[in-house]
Amino acid sequence: MSEKKKTTIILFSGEYDKAMAAFIIANGAAAYDHEVTIFATFWGLNAFRKDSHPNVKKSFLAKMFGRMMPRGVNKMGLSKMNYLGMGPKLIKHVIKKHQAMPLPNLITMAQEQEVKLVACQMTMDLLGLQEEELLDKIQYAGVGAYLADAEEGNVNLFI
Amino acid sequence: MSEKKKTTIILFSGEYDKAMAAFIIANGAAAYDHEVTIFATFWGLNAFRKDSHPNVKKSFLAKMFGRMMPRGVNKMGLSKMNYLGMGPKLIKHVIKKHQAMPLPNLITMAQEQEVKLVACQMTMDLLGLQEEELLDKIQYAGVGAYLADAEEGNVNLFI
Amino acid sequence: MSEKKKTTIILFSGEYDKAMAAFIIANGAAAYDHEVTIFATFWGLNAFRKDSHPNVKKSFLAKMFGRMMPRGVNKMGLSKMNYLGMGPKLIKHVIKKHQAMPLPNLITMAQEQEVKLVACQMTMDLLGLQEEELLDKIQYAGVGAYLADAEEGNVNLFI
Repeated sequence: MSEKKKTTIILFSGEYDKAMAAFIIANGAAAYDHEVTIFATFWGLNAFRKDSHPNVKKSFLAKMFGRMMPRGVNKMGLSKMNYLGMGPKLIKHVIKKHQAMPLPNLITMAQEQEVKLVACQMTMDLLGLQEEELLDKIQYAGVGAYLADAEEGNVNLFI
Repeated sequence: MSEKKKTTIILFSGEYDKAMAAFIIANGAAAYDHEVTIFATFWGLNAFRKDSHPNVKKSFLAKMFGRMMPRGVNKMGLSKMNYLGMGPKLIKHVIKKHQAMPLPNLITMAQEQEVKLVACQMTMDLLGLQEEELLDKIQYAGVGAYLADAEEGNVNLFI
Repeated sequence: MSEKKKTTIILFSGEYDKAMAAFIIANGAAAYDHEVTIFATFWGLNAFRKDSHPNVKKSFLAKMFGRMMPRGVNKMGLSKMNYLGMGPKLIKHVIKKHQAMPLPNLITMAQEQEVKLVACQMTMDLLGLQEEELLDKIQYAGVGAYLADAEEGNVNLFI
């Protein structure tokens, strides 16, 4: 058992605001010298997707899911006040105005602080996502790996 | 205090995908020899409802709630991409295709692994649900019982 | 480190039912003699807003957010079965009928039990909310203060 405090976050939700909350907490905990893991599953995986369209072969269903789900954080909506996409623009505007960090920067910062970003292998398989479609330096694991981290920490959140 | 590690999950949400996540984590933790409790409250109770229509007497309001809420997991929607019910069918299709477990099997597995399934008594009363309408081998308790389990464990999630 | 058990809840969501769950757990934990903190962030801040319209100066954007977001708990919707506002009325009706506590009373009770209510300073700034618009006896802090509480407790939920 490591002597560092551990923090784990399961990122299940696919909304911009919830992903922001996850990365703000993760970066805060890393700054307090915790070992931090973000385990992205179901719609949360969208936060780890690249903006670009990697050239990968897919089944029909996998293509459908791939198209329906937002490709990267800048295409994600809000959990409240989404207003057909106006909400996210407004939020990004006030973030900029207050010199706060937008989500892509929060993710970069998390990687710089060695927050462990893990993609749920089962969801990857179910939705037909491939590693080429996700950001670099993502790990791939299952619920067992999550539990091994979580059972040693106190701050374990489901977002 | 038991020497086993404890994991508790409050299942508040009534969607198929969130209930799946709850039961996958619960089954994983039970396989790692944790003592696991799923405490279903508010819309989460729908995951514990039987498909059938037990013959119970109800007040007008209780009947209304009973009709509006999904009866059992196969009537639950998704938290994202529900598309008027197409989403759940698609998810069930890919689960089958990948030989993963659909929600009813995950619940059976949880009961076989002795995951404690607890229904929130206060919500039962508020929504006029009766024990005959829920699956067998469910316990009934309040927030005090939840806290007694949770305060001894590290992995405590709200889904 | 205090010897009391600690419970923390991040209230991110802005719905009546989720805020109810947060305050029921918080009041339960306080009754079990835990030190309890509710850290309200993003839409969860609406639960701390006064019903009234304090006379504060605001920028155009802050005014817009202020108008779009519900002013106090009695204007909040439900996360499920909202039905254009009928859902919350129905819930409040059954709460009254069963002599359970509606949300404003749960908040008062939490304050009487010395549950620490903390508003996220970053969200206040982003949404242009001012202290005069929130209930009395609220503290203002950031993610660091949250983590200081959470890392000493076992029951740490994100709602």
